[in-house]
Amino acid sequence: MLAGNDTDYSSSSPVLDYLRELHTKYKPLDDGRVATYIPELAKADPDWFGICLATTSGAVYEIGDSRQSFTIQSISKPFVYGLALEDNGRLPVLQKVGVEPTGDAFNSISLDPGTGRPRNPMINAGAIASAGLIAGKTSKTKLRRLLETFGAYAGRELALDETVYQSENQTGHRNRAIGHMLRNFDVLDGDPTPVVELYFQQCSVAVTCRDLGIMAATLANRGTNPMTGKQAIRGEYVESVLSVMGSCGMYDYAGEWIYNVGMPAKSGVAGGVLAVLPGQLGIGVFSPRLDPHGNSVRGIRVCEDLARHLDLHVFNRPNAAGSVIRVHFTAADMNSSRVRTPEESRALHHFGSSIRVYQLQGDLAFATTEALVRHVMQDLPEITYLLLDLKRVLTLNESACRLLCQLLRKLANSTKSLVFAHTQHLPVMRRYMKVKLEDRFTELYRVFEDHDPALEWCENALLAATLPAGAIEKTIPASDYELFDRLTEDELSVLLPLLKRRSYQRSELIVNAGDEARELFFIARGHVSVTVTLVSGATKRLAAFSAGMAFGEMAIIDRAPRSANIVADTDVESDIMDLEQFDKLGMSHPSIKIKLLENLNLGLCRKLRKVNRDISVFD
Amino acid sequence: MLAGNDTDYSSSSPVLDYLRELHTKYKPLDDGRVATYIPELAKADPDWFGICLATTSGAVYEIGDSRQSFTIQSISKPFVYGLALEDNGRLPVLQKVGVEPTGDAFNSISLDPGTGRPRNPMINAGAIASAGLIAGKTSKTKLRRLLETFGAYAGRELALDETVYQSENQTGHRNRAIGHMLRNFDVLDGDPTPVVELYFQQCSVAVTCRDLGIMAATLANRGTNPMTGKQAIRGEYVESVLSVMGSCGMYDYAGEWIYNVGMPAKSGVAGGVLAVLPGQLGIGVFSPRLDPHGNSVRGIRVCEDLARHLDLHVFNRPNAAGSVIRVHFTAADMNSSRVRTPEESRALHHFGSSIRVYQLQGDLAFATTEALVRHVMQDLPEITYLLLDLKRVLTLNESACRLLCQLLRKLANSTKSLVFAHTQHLPVMRRYMKVKLEDRFTELYRVFEDHDPALEWCENALLAATLPAGAIEKTIPASDYELFDRLTEDELSVLLPLLKRRSYQRSELIVNAGDEARELFFIARGHVSVTVTLVSGATKRLAAFSAGMAFGEMAIIDRAPRSANIVADTDVESDIMDLEQFDKLGMSHPSIKIKLLENLNLGLCRKLRKVNRDISVFD
Repeated sequence: MLAGNDTDYSSSSPVLDYLRELHTKYKPLDDGRVATYIPELAKADPDWFGICLATTSGAVYEIGDSRQSFTIQSISKPFVYGLALEDNGRLPVLQKVGVEPTGDAFNSISLDPGTGRPRNPMINAGAIASAGLIAGKTSKTKLRRLLETFGAYAGRELALDETVYQSENQTGHRNRAIGHMLRNFDVLDGDPTPVVELYFQQCSVAVTCRDLGIMAATLANRGTNPMTGKQAIRGEYVESVLSVMGSCGMYDYAGEWIYNVGMPAKSGVAGGVLAVLPGQLGIGVFSPRLDPHGNSVRGIRVCEDLARHLDLHVFNRPNAAGSVIRVHFTAADMNSSRVRTPEESRALHHFGSSIRVYQLQGDLAFATTEALVRHVMQDLPEITYLLLDLKRVLTLNESACRLLCQLLRKLANSTKSLVFAHTQHLPVMRRYMKVKLEDRFTELYRVFEDHDPALEWCENALLAATLPAGAIEKTIPASDYELFDRLTEDELSVLLPLLKRRSYQRSELIVNAGDEARELFFIARGHVSVTVTLVSGATKRLAAFSAGMAFGEMAIIDRAPRSANIVADTDVESDIMDLEQFDKLGMSHPSIKIKLLENLNLGLCRKLRKVNRDISVFD
Repeated sequence: MLAGNDTDYSSSSPVLDYLRELHTKYKPLDDGRVATYIPELAKADPDWFGICLATTSGAVYEIGDSRQSFTIQSISKPFVYGLALEDNGRLPVLQKVGVEPTGDAFNSISLDPGTGRPRNPMINAGAIASAGLIAGKTSKTKLRRLLETFGAYAGRELALDETVYQSENQTGHRNRAIGHMLRNFDVLDGDPTPVVELYFQQCSVAVTCRDLGIMAATLANRGTNPMTGKQAIRGEYVESVLSVMGSCGMYDYAGEWIYNVGMPAKSGVAGGVLAVLPGQLGIGVFSPRLDPHGNSVRGIRVCEDLARHLDLHVFNRPNAAGSVIRVHFTAADMNSSRVRTPEESRALHHFGSSIRVYQLQGDLAFATTEALVRHVMQDLPEITYLLLDLKRVLTLNESACRLLCQLLRKLANSTKSLVFAHTQHLPVMRRYMKVKLEDRFTELYRVFEDHDPALEWCENALLAATLPAGAIEKTIPASDYELFDRLTEDELSVLLPLLKRRSYQRSELIVNAGDEARELFFIARGHVSVTVTLVSGATKRLAAFSAGMAFGEMAIIDRAPRSANIVADTDVESDIMDLEQFDKLGMSHPSIKIKLLENLNLGLCRKLRKVNRDISVFD
């Protein structure tokens, strides 16, 4: 038994254990017969049996004869149909080949009696018509493109099995007849012979069960091979390829297949079966014994078990919309880490409910975004600033963008603002907004990398609207520093000469994480932010301080190196006290030191309380 | 134009705006003809046009003639098929009715030439056979059950349109012929007449476009009506009903429908169309003009637009597996909030990498869980304690449970432990584990409500294995309290008489959030946890303290009420210092007060640093 994956995990994985169970379970099943319509296929060992499961995240599990070469046969049809779509677009292809299941057997001709249009691309007539739609000057270039595309799906170079091809070519009279019928109805132009021969070649491509699994995973991954990262087909055509597989892929067994297995699939007379669960995985099974429908007996049983045991049916989906809003709150409940004056805090407490924050999670598709938009619309009368935090959003599609844009248009008719935080990982949204919104709307929303500055922006806008102007940009006298609270005039006259004034420009780094701590900083004018760099590489703001406040005090206390960066958000005037001076105070002026320590304690407590409060909102 | 939803949001929602656009776009489209095969249908106003979209989270959007009554006709077929499945089980139903599309027109008879079995339940023959499978003693009870079930789907009582029923009954010779053919092949038992009449009745149920939308949403919601919460069909049969809709629901247009719209659907000759996007939403459209396939012309165009604009195609899914592991770390990187002795901290730093924590997010289905299990298997040689934190997992299905159980079996063969945190919101997992695991495995995993105690359990187990026994349960002399660090003998002799000893029993509440703060606590023996109650009602542990440490100091400093609960995790011996005594020290012994304040500052700094460090791992 071959468990031939290159990586280590596969040999001991629970997934491989499961495939091994399945392989053992169906190994004794010897119903069905190897195809004999061309002599080469009849040479297959009827006992060959391989299973491969490949995921969209790039894992491959395989068991049994998963590296045995065989010809792809009809499984080539969806891939060639995909090529035809890419080369011609959807409409011209639909004019030549339909997409209706016939309910007929695999070898029926099934042309529309009026137009001669083949009923679908999974029957031979439709497949030959699709092959006729592949772009290329010569038969050779067409074949090369076909092989290159198949190779991109499989993630390795593929080649023809020449013996099988010759055998097909010599015995394929029925398919030659179909070629001429198609020519008769002008579905094919010119001489049908090279097209039929290209069709014989596409059927003769040699693959393994592992290849089928990876090709299926590439379709599951919207056309990009999850192992190589290479695009085999444009994403927009994948759903069309999967649709014809879903409705017509398993010959006259297609209905039962969707009923029992519920995945788009295709089988071939050499014994291959390929099945796709969009977004999740691809399956390849190889076992040459066929049932009367022309499908691999073990292939079908294995796929049925997989679908039932692993809940793979496409129509079996959990309710998606339930948990899109992870948490929502207003600026009356919780604020940004910018520390505010008492006057500002009162204003935020009073008017903060007009700032509404929604932290979202999961996949934003139509149904989840609808649930969000509905919630927002209900709250809208009370909202002036709407902040959508997308940090925990995993994916976002175009219909979500569409709804968010429509929400934005609604807000534009009022005087409400929309602010997004954490959109970096969702480029589709930024692109959509740029393309679809007229210029007058783009001014109506803002994007921030982090939710904390986003919330601060809303707060500042609210405060600017509710408080008298100029309240923020004052310079504070040193006697008003919070850390000097309750100090007497005499005590202040001891302290103030110890301070040295220093200026920083906007964006200047004041304190560098990891540096030794030698100084305590007081802000006389401007504000600063405390930031850390996350494991992910992103920057997160931990706190923000304004005039009157001290920073760098933690390192003063525990003598540890600086634990965070401190950056000037504006031009900053700062008073600085040397660590040694601070230490000496205990000996010379114990009452001053006690008051400073008490004030320090008070500041630390406030910070810790805020963190604990935030956790209880966010967690 | 009727926008008749009971709730407020619908009239101004972006979703309704969009439906209004669609309605306006297709209102002028007057292709197609009203069905005339029975006189009653011909009386329909050809201009009637309603659209309804209902979500699995219970929102309903409707526009146009969405409350106009019409007969359900063939749209009854999937619902009756569902009833047949519930009453008989899947296999007996499959023996009487196939599931293969015919490619034939809506009124074709399509019996299997050998067995007389109708090809599928969406053609009349298969629908009549399905009606024959409804359980019930009399025709009356059968009809009552049928109406009750339809009503459960729609969320309101439904009734027959008697005039249409009489009209169907008088003209339905073709269907009576089918009934006798089915009797001839023993697909029906007994007299076929009452079955055919039941079939006429099911087709004559009066519904509105709004009803269709909600019935579709009920199927999308795995059989539970999202408005009423009432189950209309057992969840396990929904995928079967949707499968026959997907392969045969739109007559000989089914292939093109799946290709263009990509949702299981059913149409009726009165002009109704019903479409289902599993997990997300249901759509109902009503417009009586039909195309030659017997499908509503506007119904099809509206569904095509909806599918394209809202990305509703079932085969168009984002890659699910990419982001299942939100963050992973070891106990060498980050620890529980239990504060450790220096000896314990060293041991955790040294051996902590054998405790591996994975914080998961999103939906745990096969592909996502596979990605997790693969990651774990790669790390397994270094893991002794595996902690899976499921707090951010939104849904979890049986195949995820299956993989997790197999992972557990793998761990059972070694001496590794599996710990789950936050499984409360995932009852399916607890049930699965209980049912599927033999007793000897249930001892091998543990479940905690919160990840912090879960991590502490792993740490304690690791410490018990690496440190000499008894290190934890010591009683600490007051002179060793951390807050008394650097105090001289003389200073201690001042302080110790101020302490009062108090005992608490395991689980006793020591401090109650909201209480006034009067005391500072020192732990002589045992440990305590600091907890807050979250908005969700869950309890979250913020910190945990052991012998030698102080707590309650924040309230001492800022005089605010207690911000958290403090609970004894073990029997606890505690020394207590009165707040007033502490205050007085500044006057009588300033050097003692300075050292105490410095030690307090140090402790607060450590806590704040830990919180900041944790945020940079978790955020």
